[in-house]
Amino acid sequence: MVFTQKTVSLSQGPDPRTSIQKERAEQKFDPQEMQIFLEGSKERAELIKSLVQQMERDPILWTDGSYYDMTKEQLREQTALKINRVSRYLETDSIDVFNRRLSIIGVFDPSVTTRIGVNLGLFISCIRGNGTYEQLKYWALDKETAHIKGIYGCFGMTELAHGSNVMGLETTATFDKDNDEFIINTPHIGATKWWIGGAAHSATHCTVYARLIVDGEDYGVKTFVVPLRDSNHDLMPGVTVGDIGAKMGRDGIDNGWIQFSSVRIPRFFMLQKFCKVDRDGDVILPPLEQLSYSALLGGRVMMVMDSYRMLARVSTIALRYAIGRRQFKGDNVDPDDEEALETQLLDYPLHQKRLLPYLAAAYVVSAGALEVERTIEATLLELDDAVDENDEAGIMKAIDAMKSLFIDSGSLKSTCTWLAAEAIDQCRQACGGHGYSAYNGFGKAYNDWVVQCTWEGDNNVLGINIGKPLVKHVIAIEDDGKVVKGSSDFLNQLKEFTGKEGSEKVILDNAADIEDVKKVIKAIEVAIIRASYTAGKTVREKSFDYVGAELVIISKLKAHHYLLTEYVKRIDEFDQEDKKPYLYQLAQLYGATIVLDKFAGTFLAYNVISTKATAELASQVIPKLCSAIRPNVVGLTDSFQQSDMMINAPIGRYDGDIYENYFDLVKVLNPPKNHKAPYSAALEAMLNRPSLSERERFEKSLETGEILSK
Amino acid sequence: MVFTQKTVSLSQGPDPRTSIQKERAEQKFDPQEMQIFLEGSKERAELIKSLVQQMERDPILWTDGSYYDMTKEQLREQTALKINRVSRYLETDSIDVFNRRLSIIGVFDPSVTTRIGVNLGLFISCIRGNGTYEQLKYWALDKETAHIKGIYGCFGMTELAHGSNVMGLETTATFDKDNDEFIINTPHIGATKWWIGGAAHSATHCTVYARLIVDGEDYGVKTFVVPLRDSNHDLMPGVTVGDIGAKMGRDGIDNGWIQFSSVRIPRFFMLQKFCKVDRDGDVILPPLEQLSYSALLGGRVMMVMDSYRMLARVSTIALRYAIGRRQFKGDNVDPDDEEALETQLLDYPLHQKRLLPYLAAAYVVSAGALEVERTIEATLLELDDAVDENDEAGIMKAIDAMKSLFIDSGSLKSTCTWLAAEAIDQCRQACGGHGYSAYNGFGKAYNDWVVQCTWEGDNNVLGINIGKPLVKHVIAIEDDGKVVKGSSDFLNQLKEFTGKEGSEKVILDNAADIEDVKKVIKAIEVAIIRASYTAGKTVREKSFDYVGAELVIISKLKAHHYLLTEYVKRIDEFDQEDKKPYLYQLAQLYGATIVLDKFAGTFLAYNVISTKATAELASQVIPKLCSAIRPNVVGLTDSFQQSDMMINAPIGRYDGDIYENYFDLVKVLNPPKNHKAPYSAALEAMLNRPSLSERERFEKSLETGEILSK
Repeated sequence: MVFTQKTVSLSQGPDPRTSIQKERAEQKFDPQEMQIFLEGSKERAELIKSLVQQMERDPILWTDGSYYDMTKEQLREQTALKINRVSRYLETDSIDVFNRRLSIIGVFDPSVTTRIGVNLGLFISCIRGNGTYEQLKYWALDKETAHIKGIYGCFGMTELAHGSNVMGLETTATFDKDNDEFIINTPHIGATKWWIGGAAHSATHCTVYARLIVDGEDYGVKTFVVPLRDSNHDLMPGVTVGDIGAKMGRDGIDNGWIQFSSVRIPRFFMLQKFCKVDRDGDVILPPLEQLSYSALLGGRVMMVMDSYRMLARVSTIALRYAIGRRQFKGDNVDPDDEEALETQLLDYPLHQKRLLPYLAAAYVVSAGALEVERTIEATLLELDDAVDENDEAGIMKAIDAMKSLFIDSGSLKSTCTWLAAEAIDQCRQACGGHGYSAYNGFGKAYNDWVVQCTWEGDNNVLGINIGKPLVKHVIAIEDDGKVVKGSSDFLNQLKEFTGKEGSEKVILDNAADIEDVKKVIKAIEVAIIRASYTAGKTVREKSFDYVGAELVIISKLKAHHYLLTEYVKRIDEFDQEDKKPYLYQLAQLYGATIVLDKFAGTFLAYNVISTKATAELASQVIPKLCSAIRPNVVGLTDSFQQSDMMINAPIGRYDGDIYENYFDLVKVLNPPKNHKAPYSAALEAMLNRPSLSERERFEKSLETGEILSK
Repeated sequence: MVFTQKTVSLSQGPDPRTSIQKERAEQKFDPQEMQIFLEGSKERAELIKSLVQQMERDPILWTDGSYYDMTKEQLREQTALKINRVSRYLETDSIDVFNRRLSIIGVFDPSVTTRIGVNLGLFISCIRGNGTYEQLKYWALDKETAHIKGIYGCFGMTELAHGSNVMGLETTATFDKDNDEFIINTPHIGATKWWIGGAAHSATHCTVYARLIVDGEDYGVKTFVVPLRDSNHDLMPGVTVGDIGAKMGRDGIDNGWIQFSSVRIPRFFMLQKFCKVDRDGDVILPPLEQLSYSALLGGRVMMVMDSYRMLARVSTIALRYAIGRRQFKGDNVDPDDEEALETQLLDYPLHQKRLLPYLAAAYVVSAGALEVERTIEATLLELDDAVDENDEAGIMKAIDAMKSLFIDSGSLKSTCTWLAAEAIDQCRQACGGHGYSAYNGFGKAYNDWVVQCTWEGDNNVLGINIGKPLVKHVIAIEDDGKVVKGSSDFLNQLKEFTGKEGSEKVILDNAADIEDVKKVIKAIEVAIIRASYTAGKTVREKSFDYVGAELVIISKLKAHHYLLTEYVKRIDEFDQEDKKPYLYQLAQLYGATIVLDKFAGTFLAYNVISTKATAELASQVIPKLCSAIRPNVVGLTDSFQQSDMMINAPIGRYDGDIYENYFDLVKVLNPPKNHKAPYSAALEAMLNRPSLSERERFEKSLETGEILSK
């Protein structure tokens, strides 16, 4: 036997590379064309490729497996160096290019994106949302923050004892009329600003959320720009910052805590688009206060795009592995054929069911991410224009759009970040032990990711806050005949699907219904309507708190409704007819698994689906869709066009040579010559220690006993 | 205002300590008495307390928050030092004491338990399972392995390209008749032993799973003791070991890979309880091969106990936090009362629903863990006795018991480790941002934990392997009138609950049914029967592979059936009547949430529960049970008697002083004086860099343009 090999093999080893390459050769569509669907346009798809190439070749931004061996201290420094490097690109990037660039870095080194995002996203968004145009221009442009230059901002909202309840924050900003200053103070430990990204090491300024106190009166929480460090990077007097220390993930970010001890800032450091304190201490109260927390909206929208990219990355790794890895001889192998190879993992129906839904989710979420991104850009522009022109009708219209965006982005942020977290975990498990190796990326991906379920709106709190207005809509439709507009307008069908007769209408009655995506979308609408209606009845008797769990389910269903609707719309608009059948199958699988299978209890309990259809869902529809998608998996994952650097997992690389790639990396990072530990002497001393009696100086021996017993 | 305080407060800060202490004072039962239920006996409960005290005071075993800051290298060394220390206790511990000790260490430093467990659990279990009594005595006792002395064993089963399919392993052990030796060889990269705990640094010997080759014939996978390092800890010739490197968790374990290049061992290093090769190369084949993989059973059983302790730990942290933390003013606060405190998290119905099921799960799993532990001890003893006495009837009886144990331990291992993983994740999320701090323990707990879902039987593969015999039982009952014995004997009710009439019988029709735990147990039985029956029909048409997902569900339900049954039995047998109502409520909640709510689709699709009952489950039963359990939460968590060292999370400590404890720890580990990073110069240089034009040497300026355009 002759083998092409790097080292001696005495028998034929596994050959995963051939498996994937054979399948790749059989793909029926061009992944580069499919990428256009995923990124929204040919231009975007090409832009992304050129950005990835630029960063892959950059000596500082380039990231490989050694990343997984870094300590917190190394990651902190490395992240700072990368930010410095990114800042040079930023000086000439357009906004659109820069956003794409950050989105891509977020895939292979999310700490960099976040640590920049705190400055350019949260800090500047807070000023944009709460400050005047001149204030924004001063802090963002004149001070060069927007180029990560001059000053570095952080976002001082969360406190040790207050997170979700922003209105309850306890830091104070007391107006000192004599000096025309605000005094920023942390009254007690609970009001310590906490988790502040960038505070520990980087930030020079902070947008501080603090209670405005004028003449002893508390006007609620407003925002102030407070310098933390001077231009020599020395802490300002009265400012104490500390390092939050070790976290579950995102070690590259220098999260810190801040205490203010009577720190004085000029009056004009208050952000005053909606609320002003004049020289005499008169407070001009915000007419539009609901807009002042919009700083978080941009982040939520970005997290939907992040979710798409994460779903794409982890499903690519797990699916490529599942094509190369073989385990047992399954039903597709002739039991009498002793020479037959073991079955590829992905040829097992269970394995398909475990993984393909996340592949489908990546596609479906991409469409929602593009749409909600488009919406926020448009809405913020409209709002800024209206405010600048003092156009009250325009402002009210923009506020309506913002409210709708609040619901869509909130339900999407929470649902998609949860879904991506689940996908990372499930994809890791699907790679068995190799999924647990740090070098295959899942561990760090998970640890870095899951904070997305908590920050910038805790997912459960968001779920409640999204579910609540939907239930209120339903109550208002019932009580006042209200007509709902926007993305929740399907609620207007309330009467049709509730009440004695309406509540009996089954939407999905058999396998064919489930395979019809428009019917699945309808089913989600009806489930939301009935769940909201039922919750509404309970709310009348008890309270909103009592139906918290139902509100979260309603919010999730709302997100799935949005995603599937936008995805189908996008397929309809896509100009490459030959790709549509593949795309539609993914919509079907998403509907069958991520929606119907996962919420089976809800759909059954509300008569949206019949028990017959549920049985067919599991036994027929899902296996059928999975096996239809199976042959296209290589093409569908290649279409994400995530390069090996972005994937950063040897078992998930494009060439599919899982064992060689993985073993090589392990050996490079952990040279076999280090087979004795630095602490080996301690181990050896333990193993070669004298007997217990000897170490006890033979004091417990029979002989000693005789002596001591005399 | 006067505050008792360590530092100046200018207004009243949060006082979480008082919340928990007030509730603790109102508890209606003694947690120390309740602990007896959880640990199985008064003696055990007291033993555990004395062991914890011993280890808390031990200068090396003591573990605190600094643990979360350690690098992989530090953890590796620290773990070795702890093992050395534990070995001294081990020299005088009885087996029972030692098992408890390891079980407790597993809560606060699982790497220590695992790294010892590989040696004393897997290595010795493998010899016990596959070797003769004399071989066991020689390797375990004469060589002092059992005292972590002399030699250190590791367990060489998994290979780079083979995990679950043990029969497919490719390492070879070729008999060399001339020299009366086996030649152990790794033929190619895929057969490299992989993930081997202890191999990288510690192990001197390895029980190697390798294909026995005699005269060119392959007799399948057998086990051999192969020395890796000599008594100077130098590698044996032909042995290559390397470090697997960074993992998602369990960094204290020196997992390694091993390649054998024609390594020679004497013939008598083969483990030969069931299979021998004699001097002439005649192979005496195993009559009882199914027993030879029992090495993993002990580990699986231990993981059920681990699951109990992990559920107890994380639910304690999250629940104590939920009592101290306040957020928004909920329905229980008078909206007109401005002085009213915000609502405790745990007073929100959603928060109760999110957390109390895991508290209930800890209690329920404890009972199953004790029972399956008792069973394996008894069964192994019986088997050893029967084999020693060559008692064939005894051996067959023990084999039956082992088969039953295989099903029970496999379904419990997979179901409980998944449940605990979910609990860690959900409890972390319930603590918001503070759950993401490394110091509150969830991150490391999760990273260390989730490998339990993969190793020693991948949970999905186990699920299939447990579901399959159950479906086969059902087929055999139908076809051959077989009568099933043991813990699956409820399958004999097949005819009653399937077929035209039987399949219509609803077990849970209303809220009262759900609250009756015996009915819930019945419902699980019927669900298993119907699911197995339906899967059986599909198997006849298609194959077992096709119903993989259903098999996993069946296995999970089997585990829940076992757990609830044992738990209720244990309550019945418990001699403290006053505790029973509290214990029973937890069974009800477990049934309602962990079983019925989670598998709602299955129970509804199989008509086990009515849609009416499902609606009542969510809207009435769960909220009612949660609010009944709510007042007892402090007592129920205190009953786990996990000391602050075991909890190792400042927000979860007994005194409930969440903010002070947490802030103190953060400051001790990250002194605020370090507010400039070691890499601060790079940051400052970035922020204070010259303008782009200057750095571009003004080469792109208009002036230059004029010059260069002339």
